[in-house]
Amino acid sequence: MLQDWLGPKAAALEARGLTRRLRARAADERLIDLAGNDYLGLASDPRVIEAAADAVCQWGTGSTASRLVTGTTALHEELESSLAAYVGQETALVFSSGYLANLGVVTALGGPGTLVVSDDHVHASLIDGSRLSRSRVEVVPHNDVDAVDKVLAERNEPHALVLTESVFSVLSDEAPLIELAAVAREQDAVLLVDEAHGLGVTGGGRGSVHAAGLAGLEHVIVTMTLSKALAAQGGVVLGPALLRDHLINRSRPFIYDTGLNPAACAAALAALWVLQDEPERPAAIHSAAARLASACGVPSSSGAVVSVPMPGPREAVRAAELCLENGVRVGSFRPPSVPDGISRLRLTAHAGLSDEDLDRACAVIVAAIGEVS
Amino acid sequence: MLQDWLGPKAAALEARGLTRRLRARAADERLIDLAGNDYLGLASDPRVIEAAADAVCQWGTGSTASRLVTGTTALHEELESSLAAYVGQETALVFSSGYLANLGVVTALGGPGTLVVSDDHVHASLIDGSRLSRSRVEVVPHNDVDAVDKVLAERNEPHALVLTESVFSVLSDEAPLIELAAVAREQDAVLLVDEAHGLGVTGGGRGSVHAAGLAGLEHVIVTMTLSKALAAQGGVVLGPALLRDHLINRSRPFIYDTGLNPAACAAALAALWVLQDEPERPAAIHSAAARLASACGVPSSSGAVVSVPMPGPREAVRAAELCLENGVRVGSFRPPSVPDGISRLRLTAHAGLSDEDLDRACAVIVAAIGEVS
Ligand SMILES: Cc1ncc(COP(=O)(O)O)c(C=O)c1O
Ligand SMILES: Cc1ncc(COP(=O)(O)O)c(C=O)c1O
Repeated sequence: MLQDWLGPKAAALEARGLTRRLRARAADERLIDLAGNDYLGLASDPRVIEAAADAVCQWGTGSTASRLVTGTTALHEELESSLAAYVGQETALVFSSGYLANLGVVTALGGPGTLVVSDDHVHASLIDGSRLSRSRVEVVPHNDVDAVDKVLAERNEPHALVLTESVFSVLSDEAPLIELAAVAREQDAVLLVDEAHGLGVTGGGRGSVHAAGLAGLEHVIVTMTLSKALAAQGGVVLGPALLRDHLINRSRPFIYDTGLNPAACAAALAALWVLQDEPERPAAIHSAAARLASACGVPSSSGAVVSVPMPGPREAVRAAELCLENGVRVGSFRPPSVPDGISRLRLTAHAGLSDEDLDRACAVIVAAIGEVS
Repeated sequence: MLQDWLGPKAAALEARGLTRRLRARAADERLIDLAGNDYLGLASDPRVIEAAADAVCQWGTGSTASRLVTGTTALHEELESSLAAYVGQETALVFSSGYLANLGVVTALGGPGTLVVSDDHVHASLIDGSRLSRSRVEVVPHNDVDAVDKVLAERNEPHALVLTESVFSVLSDEAPLIELAAVAREQDAVLLVDEAHGLGVTGGGRGSVHAAGLAGLEHVIVTMTLSKALAAQGGVVLGPALLRDHLINRSRPFIYDTGLNPAACAAALAALWVLQDEPERPAAIHSAAARLASACGVPSSSGAVVSVPMPGPREAVRAAELCLENGVRVGSFRPPSVPDGISRLRLTAHAGLSDEDLDRACAVIVAAIGEVS
């Protein structure tokens, strides 16, 4: 019966060249990695590794229950207060993933009395949060502040939540945060900014909300993930204490989920310390990104990601395979993972890349693109 | 504005005695723990700790991206094949949490062509998955096989998914799996069994689906969490290869989420090895649970959890506080975390509890209940 149900769907995907398969990494592989989101190069940093290993010994391998039962350790609290202080927010609350942090905050603020206004490029987790919230959802064109203003002004709901990302995950472009925050304030709405790709990258590491002078405002709240620049796993919601208390009491993906494991907490905290001690790291991401962009002939982006449009999904996959054969791992994005339907290579710049690695990566990628185009 | 929005809600909760607050554990606390879900006592087992610490050194602190990009390591694959073999399933797919595994499988099988039939005691993650799936959802009374049969027979949708747990999380009672599987087969539906509280506990550790002889059937699929008996973090969907391929291609909480961190993968794998090497561990959970149940004068349960009804939410919290003051940590469940609205103490039995600890715990709990009742 599952065969009748799922078999035809699998065949249809295959026919369109869109089947995805998992490929495991080996521990000893020697590749130049431009596909992972370890933007600051900290997932293999000895200080971060040591902190995670120590936490496993001290706290055990799991948090053992919901954050509300035994799942909150002193590590979780230290991570929350340190991260909040670093990015200029009053409080932070750690979830077990960035995905659940987004679901958790949108559903806890959403509902019939809340209009959700969502940029049409936002991440799947924000979209799923909107759907799950039972709010009326208005999807507005990408980065269109006037459209946001209009739907906010016309609403009947007492509350409204505007969803955006500071640096968008696929195209790596930035949201007009200052304008969005102004419109939100005027229209008595809350702006939620997902800084998954901003933390550790923009604003000298503190993210775009901090850089724009919006950190700590009552009507601007932030989500982050610990799985990219902070080299771990987990998600965070940041904002006023009242928001944190509300989530602890009302957010189902917080209440009914096991707390983040101690190793991930400690890794994120140690990565944050490295970032604070070595504030030049984010700049290294931007110079690497600029070199990759210029080699590929695309405009340079605000974030770590360089997005290179390709003729189609098969060409994107083939180019990524050619790169891999030549020792360089790049990402390929195909529908439905691209907001505009255009398949592309996704190159992520890392702070740890040497000049030689970057030169070699540029040569390999340019050759691969040439071969498939 | 957030104050106007959330302040009154916070005050209303407080007035009803339902405000939840986080309390951090310290690393050096000496308590008898009957609140966490580390059922097999493996979160602090030296073998599990060593495996996690080694994984951090070998693989780094994060998986660095989606499982489809760089987030799949050889560890993830080894965990998947080992766990599938242990519980008698063809394949397994690891998610970053049990919550997301449930969201991921229900949404990937749900939709307008699928009726979801949901037991009214299922976990929040299955409820959220049902809502998010855009399926028509029929909630049926707890463990009512005839009601399931009826709504399946009357449906117009070509597909149907029946949701249950093998051992329910709050009351620790079991679902009639054999009967549900028979009805599902007859009605051309798929039965999804959440074994969050079955793995490592029932069926000698292999769970209730295996014990019932249902493992590996095409129309019975399973989810598990790695965060309870396996002492780590993460979730798993188990079933035919076709299901796994479908999830890899269609499950948004899988595709758009960073892979589980290597430390958690390795911990779960090492815990599984211990469980296989020491098959007597699950029996120790049951004897501890039976002692706790008999001391509290409640019927013994099928799982690790012993659920003790209390007069109200304040009494439940007060009794738990009294226990804590006397060196025993127990859980308290209050609305909305209880399916029947009855506040209760939630005691979890662990394989690692000594006879002395159990005696002491029973005495402390019985005294606390006496004091508040
Ligand atoms: C913009 C954005 N938000 C949220 C997430 C989810 O975070 P996580 O993978 O840590 O769950 C991601 C990436 O995975 C993302 O790119
Ligand atoms: C029945 C059930 N399913 C799913 C989950 C979610 O698993 P996790 O906490 O690992 O995300 C839990 C508990 O948290 C649970 O009790």
